[in-house]
Amino acid sequence: MIPILFAMPGNEAFTLHLDRAISCEVGQMEMRRFPDGETYVRLRSPVYGRDVVFVCTLDRPDEKLISLYLAVRTARELGARRVGLVAPYLSYMRQDARFKEGEGITSAHIAAFLSDFLDWLVTVDPHLHRHHRLNEIYSIPTKVVHAAPAIGDWIAEHVDNPVIIGPDAESEQWAAKAAESVRCPYVVLEKTRKGDHEVEVTEVAESWGTGGWKGGTPVLVDDITSTGQTMIAATRRLKQAGLPPPVCISVHPVFAGSAFEDLHAEGVADIVSCNTIHHSTNRIDVAEAIAVAAVELMAILPING
Amino acid sequence: MIPILFAMPGNEAFTLHLDRAISCEVGQMEMRRFPDGETYVRLRSPVYGRDVVFVCTLDRPDEKLISLYLAVRTARELGARRVGLVAPYLSYMRQDARFKEGEGITSAHIAAFLSDFLDWLVTVDPHLHRHHRLNEIYSIPTKVVHAAPAIGDWIAEHVDNPVIIGPDAESEQWAAKAAESVRCPYVVLEKTRKGDHEVEVTEVAESWGTGGWKGGTPVLVDDITSTGQTMIAATRRLKQAGLPPPVCISVHPVFAGSAFEDLHAEGVADIVSCNTIHHSTNRIDVAEAIAVAAVELMAILPING
Repeated sequence: MIPILFAMPGNEAFTLHLDRAISCEVGQMEMRRFPDGETYVRLRSPVYGRDVVFVCTLDRPDEKLISLYLAVRTARELGARRVGLVAPYLSYMRQDARFKEGEGITSAHIAAFLSDFLDWLVTVDPHLHRHHRLNEIYSIPTKVVHAAPAIGDWIAEHVDNPVIIGPDAESEQWAAKAAESVRCPYVVLEKTRKGDHEVEVTEVAESWGTGGWKGGTPVLVDDITSTGQTMIAATRRLKQAGLPPPVCISVHPVFAGSAFEDLHAEGVADIVSCNTIHHSTNRIDVAEAIAVAAVELMAILPING
Repeated sequence: MIPILFAMPGNEAFTLHLDRAISCEVGQMEMRRFPDGETYVRLRSPVYGRDVVFVCTLDRPDEKLISLYLAVRTARELGARRVGLVAPYLSYMRQDARFKEGEGITSAHIAAFLSDFLDWLVTVDPHLHRHHRLNEIYSIPTKVVHAAPAIGDWIAEHVDNPVIIGPDAESEQWAAKAAESVRCPYVVLEKTRKGDHEVEVTEVAESWGTGGWKGGTPVLVDDITSTGQTMIAATRRLKQAGLPPPVCISVHPVFAGSAFEDLHAEGVADIVSCNTIHHSTNRIDVAEAIAVAAVELMAILPING
């Protein structure tokens, strides 16, 4: 029997993209909050004996995680065979170590929480830094989809003479991959984080000086745009270097608070994102790659999860 | 070693009340949200080998539950001996059955969630309806504190010639107990719920007609005041019956949205609540009874939870 997909609130559009990419059924779910803030959930489509997939991107995660937990438990109670999660954006990946005594390593805690009630997980470019693979913290099968090919395709189609800029050392992984797919040069900047909201781009990596790419259009590519400070600092640095306004591409457009407006006010050429989090800048579709990954993962899983 | 208490955000005042009632230490915890909505937690006081108690009332529960989960996991990671929860208000007790096909029985799911990472739980008058005891859904030791004695004391001290009114059949349990403690009459009304926000008090129970208490001051006592519609409908019914404006007492002052203002606008004599949820109407302190219950529970628990 084909899998049944349920869109958690806010994931309806993305779920329809998945539905177009693979053979599945989109189920009807009623989810709302009672006036006192409690979640109400009702699965209106039958799940008994079926592969169930919840689609729930996990930006602003704390409220969503409890609703998701309740929906999954309900599916199990109603006899679902296996229950998986498509989380185009997987949050809680950044507190991946105890930097100060007494801190919680929340990446591991949330991984344990999700692993406890789900059978599998598919996501797009999780923020892997001190953890090198998801299975260091997730005990369920996972599959990671890379956005770089889709980003590369978009750049190749929409930007003349692009030069990909990674705003910090961590971004080299996807900047390099996107550049490879476009067959264009890339440069990686370096940054120093001074707090949740402040970022300084202190130094430009060596390749900056080679100059062979200087006539190109700078395309900043970063994985998570949260406060936007990394993009903003990089944009300013590019301007100081006499370069034209960059095209800013974000894999995960979190855009906390006024981040989008702040970045826009820097006078960038364009702000573009993958549709891992619903946002007005979504122009790069990663749904098909996710759908393929989910189908592949379900195919190799044992029947009892 | 004496237990160490940590106040979750918003529970600081109540935790100080507990601290005055029993021999314990109030620990220092840093908890905040990153700009992207993720919880950051740091326990600044040592917990290794100790009994740890988190104080977290669970109104507006979904966001709080994940923060609580992360704080408890952090305490365990840091070597806490046992970790308990004082939740003066325990939410998710009302969806206690599958009323329509496909609905999640969230009372059981949240109980399973909490039971999975906590060693024990103390709360005040949980909304027990179809579940008759917490251990039908909680697999950890629990202890229930009753607010009726404290409410009775308050009424005896502040209301002349009181008559306790339970606004619906479910409220009879605490209305009767409070009346017993004040040694005054009580009456129970009946209501019909027409939706999340609408309630109609359709009929007055038999004892209404006996009249022996009609010169008294009506004191409405209910367990959870969420939208306030139950209290409002009961107040109107009392007015129609020619009675003076009631004193409204709530065990759990959730007061969703404009509930407090709406109730106030009915021209009631007073609105008073227990301090299970921080609110301007808090005038009945249940902290001492909770502290005693927590100490009793910890005393009988096995060392390894």
